[in-house]
Amino acid sequence: MHELVSHTEYQTIQTPSRYEIRDITDLVERARANAHLWDGIVLVSTMHITSSIFVNDHESGLWQDIMTWLEELAPQKPEYRHHLTGEDNADAHLKRMLLGHQVIVPVTKGKLDLGRWERVHYGEFDGCRPKRILLKALGMAEEGRT
Amino acid sequence: MHELVSHTEYQTIQTPSRYEIRDITDLVERARANAHLWDGIVLVSTMHITSSIFVNDHESGLWQDIMTWLEELAPQKPEYRHHLTGEDNADAHLKRMLLGHQVIVPVTKGKLDLGRWERVHYGEFDGCRPKRILLKALGMAEEGRT
Amino acid sequence: MHELVSHTEYQTIQTPSRYEIRDITDLVERARANAHLWDGIVLVSTMHITSSIFVNDHESGLWQDIMTWLEELAPQKPEYRHHLTGEDNADAHLKRMLLGHQVIVPVTKGKLDLGRWERVHYGEFDGCRPKRILLKALGMAEEGRT
Repeated sequence: MHELVSHTEYQTIQTPSRYEIRDITDLVERARANAHLWDGIVLVSTMHITSSIFVNDHESGLWQDIMTWLEELAPQKPEYRHHLTGEDNADAHLKRMLLGHQVIVPVTKGKLDLGRWERVHYGEFDGCRPKRILLKALGMAEEGRT
Repeated sequence: MHELVSHTEYQTIQTPSRYEIRDITDLVERARANAHLWDGIVLVSTMHITSSIFVNDHESGLWQDIMTWLEELAPQKPEYRHHLTGEDNADAHLKRMLLGHQVIVPVTKGKLDLGRWERVHYGEFDGCRPKRILLKALGMAEEGRT
Repeated sequence: MHELVSHTEYQTIQTPSRYEIRDITDLVERARANAHLWDGIVLVSTMHITSSIFVNDHESGLWQDIMTWLEELAPQKPEYRHHLTGEDNADAHLKRMLLGHQVIVPVTKGKLDLGRWERVHYGEFDGCRPKRILLKALGMAEEGRT
């Protein structure tokens, strides 16, 4: 019989630039392995409100397209009301909502159950400082492991 | 040993205005507590197709920025085909997709496992009537509770 | 006592046109029934990076509004950097992120726990070829079933 497992990890990401996209699929697989998760899900969620977690292609041209497009739809500009608080990152709050802040990665027979081109990405829109992401594996443990 | 728990609650929200953002994090914690959930997730999902659930900053200036921005990207206007059915809320159907209609809140050691500034919000785009949200806690119960 | 269940299905969708929206709620209910899921969630996730899974109204006028709106916000055009790889579908990668690539459908007492107008949809933005979606039911099995 498979036991229920619920296992949580945190990872810190600090990008050298304010805006950056990074493939974090390997971190998701590592969390799955550490959890000994056989079948279930891994929740991948940023703990900050100015960054994203999303699934898309690992292709640098597309990453540039995404950043250009986000700037068109949610531009960096001084006129946001949020900036009356002293902040300057309202665009990051909006950009992160367009891509979303979390994904669920399915796990089947001990493997991330992703399509051929699906990769999990971290999108940073207010970087140059440490940000945390949460990875929670939930489901059936490998037999003999709990 | 921790038992599996799956517990569901419904909350009704009726806003006095057509468009409104409201912090509902306390409702999520209440559902977690009622479920005696120790480790797992709480799904928070609107049951209506003209409202959103999203995670962002509890800051009123940002809330205004979000509403202004949604109106730019998905404006209220008469020309939608959906309005041929007699409805007038096509913009609400679009706005709700930009912010998303559900979030997963991780729970670790009996607490909502959110970052410092993460708050769960309800976004209403066709209010002035009762709307329901669903909260489902899934995972490991506190020891001795099922 | 309810046993833990984690059950996965795959469905292939091939649309006759490049852009199409399709109601797939019946596929979700079928996966729930095959899993004998009593209480929990069904993850519905596209395995491709140029299509979406989203919840909205089953109304053909709105479906047209959604497609028109997506074309305004993420237009098909030659100038994307992603197209330097030989691809021509960068718009599909962007459109799919506006609507999202997965949803969680709650299940309560053996039924999809959806609001009156909530329907699960597949959005195709680069069709005319077979695409796969994943459905994973996770939670408590019906009594006497595992």
